[in-house]
Amino acid sequence: MLIVPEREIANLMTRAAAFDAVEQVFAAMAAGDAYNFPVVREAIGHEDALYGFKGGFDRAGLTLGLKAGGYWPNNLEKRNLINHQSTVFLFDPDTGRARAMVGGNLLTALRTAAASSVSIKHLARKDARVIGMVGAGHQATFQLRAALEQRDFDKVIGWNYHPEMLPNIEKIAREAGVPFQAVDLPGMVEADVIISITSAFSPSLMADHVAPGCHLACMGTDTKGKQEVEAALLARATVFTDEVAQSVSIGEAQHAVAEGLIAESDVHQLGAVINGTHAGRVSDDQITLFDGTGVGLQDLAVAAAVVDLAVAQGIAIEVDF
Amino acid sequence: MLIVPEREIANLMTRAAAFDAVEQVFAAMAAGDAYNFPVVREAIGHEDALYGFKGGFDRAGLTLGLKAGGYWPNNLEKRNLINHQSTVFLFDPDTGRARAMVGGNLLTALRTAAASSVSIKHLARKDARVIGMVGAGHQATFQLRAALEQRDFDKVIGWNYHPEMLPNIEKIAREAGVPFQAVDLPGMVEADVIISITSAFSPSLMADHVAPGCHLACMGTDTKGKQEVEAALLARATVFTDEVAQSVSIGEAQHAVAEGLIAESDVHQLGAVINGTHAGRVSDDQITLFDGTGVGLQDLAVAAAVVDLAVAQGIAIEVDF
Repeated sequence: MLIVPEREIANLMTRAAAFDAVEQVFAAMAAGDAYNFPVVREAIGHEDALYGFKGGFDRAGLTLGLKAGGYWPNNLEKRNLINHQSTVFLFDPDTGRARAMVGGNLLTALRTAAASSVSIKHLARKDARVIGMVGAGHQATFQLRAALEQRDFDKVIGWNYHPEMLPNIEKIAREAGVPFQAVDLPGMVEADVIISITSAFSPSLMADHVAPGCHLACMGTDTKGKQEVEAALLARATVFTDEVAQSVSIGEAQHAVAEGLIAESDVHQLGAVINGTHAGRVSDDQITLFDGTGVGLQDLAVAAAVVDLAVAQGIAIEVDF
Repeated sequence: MLIVPEREIANLMTRAAAFDAVEQVFAAMAAGDAYNFPVVREAIGHEDALYGFKGGFDRAGLTLGLKAGGYWPNNLEKRNLINHQSTVFLFDPDTGRARAMVGGNLLTALRTAAASSVSIKHLARKDARVIGMVGAGHQATFQLRAALEQRDFDKVIGWNYHPEMLPNIEKIAREAGVPFQAVDLPGMVEADVIISITSAFSPSLMADHVAPGCHLACMGTDTKGKQEVEAALLARATVFTDEVAQSVSIGEAQHAVAEGLIAESDVHQLGAVINGTHAGRVSDDQITLFDGTGVGLQDLAVAAAVVDLAVAQGIAIEVDF
């Protein structure tokens, strides 16, 4: 039994390793080699916490297990702990025995950033130059840092409901040597790639804020009722996702489907593009949109990668369990 | 983060501690203080394995977490490992952080035996003298050993589809100084308490094999289609269970309910008897029947108890996670 504590993840895990793990598991999902189990999510009636399990099995990568944890909204204020708390448990698919336990907090941010990056690699125009950020919180910094590696961007533009948070992402742009400019939402029409990463329950980005040829990664909507972009935008775009069932029920596509603007069959797996079974972007003025809902298999994939790195570097704690 | 490996459980856990943990959590469930989450159970398409998660939260005992694992049918033959493999993970309900990892294999047998014992304590006649065992496999030995502590039994009778397995339970009876006799199924009419613990898909024990005043604990049926006793027996009995929703869907009561012999409202929580909100047995010729389906909260309760014992005895492995 191997243990990789949360404190080791930052030194072990690379954006490249997270990217490869997520790209591979999206491909395995689309090929039918990997699937996610039903999600358990419970308001436990204690500390206002949401707790649950996201499990899955990847037959190609032989990764089996779950992420357990959730959201404890009072952690930061009461205990100086982060509010999102999660742990990944991996099992040996040959025997059912527990194989590894891995801190899941930083991994969750990295796998979410990797997902939008994978979508940019496979769907954004090769000549994309301007990237727009809708949202400037903690997660947005991970998103932007990973995205900047996917194209030769020469400008970052950003908007946030609370403009005083924009320095979070300006700092990331500056570190990458790319100029940053705050814009209003209509100003997003300049962007070739847009990442939205907010927790809004009504749309910020409207269809006419988006130029032809843009690729959008909508990463914030993972719950019934949340919404980041106008539903009409999905009707104008070719829509991709990590998992179709989640996209149309708890993802950004829920609203366009509910309003009859698109059908479930209009939502495609990003993995199919990776595998070459879906053409993906076919023209320079097509809008592509990735609805990143977040699946357990992403967590398992990055956790398995970090266990391999920890073993190779002699950092994994071995317990005779 | 505390770790209690499987190999330590046998020395740490007592039947009394398992009994107390299960009795308390049944009471908490009936009082509305503890509830089980939806069960995830997947045929993963690898090694013919069944894998899943049983989680729950006990607000009274502040126990939160899950048992993960399942059934790997090729383990014993291919790898000399037991086929049932499970691990219990406990979380701190105040913060969401992982608190303990505990080997769940022996605990599963102990918590299942504790459940039937709790039913015997609260539902069997005080003057019960003969206990009958339907089933003589590995689990039956745990069941009988625990049950013998609940009443002043002076005889054990046993039946098994494969009679050559009866020495398993004869040995337990002999160790307790109680005579054992193999019987046919109609011979069970002599028993004051009957435990059935088989994995049958058609009934062995018929209604006329059971005498008035008997208490039955049906512990084998935990899946749609399994059945240990004739459905008509449930119509003659006052029926109790760990969790009503499981009892009528995957437990022994599924058949009597499907045949319209009893209604869901005829199935009562054993915890209500423990709490004194249900009278339980009210006469000496009443048949009582406990449908033990097995819930995640039982696993969490015994795991929490074993962690306390391991800490007290300095055996828990502490990992800075």
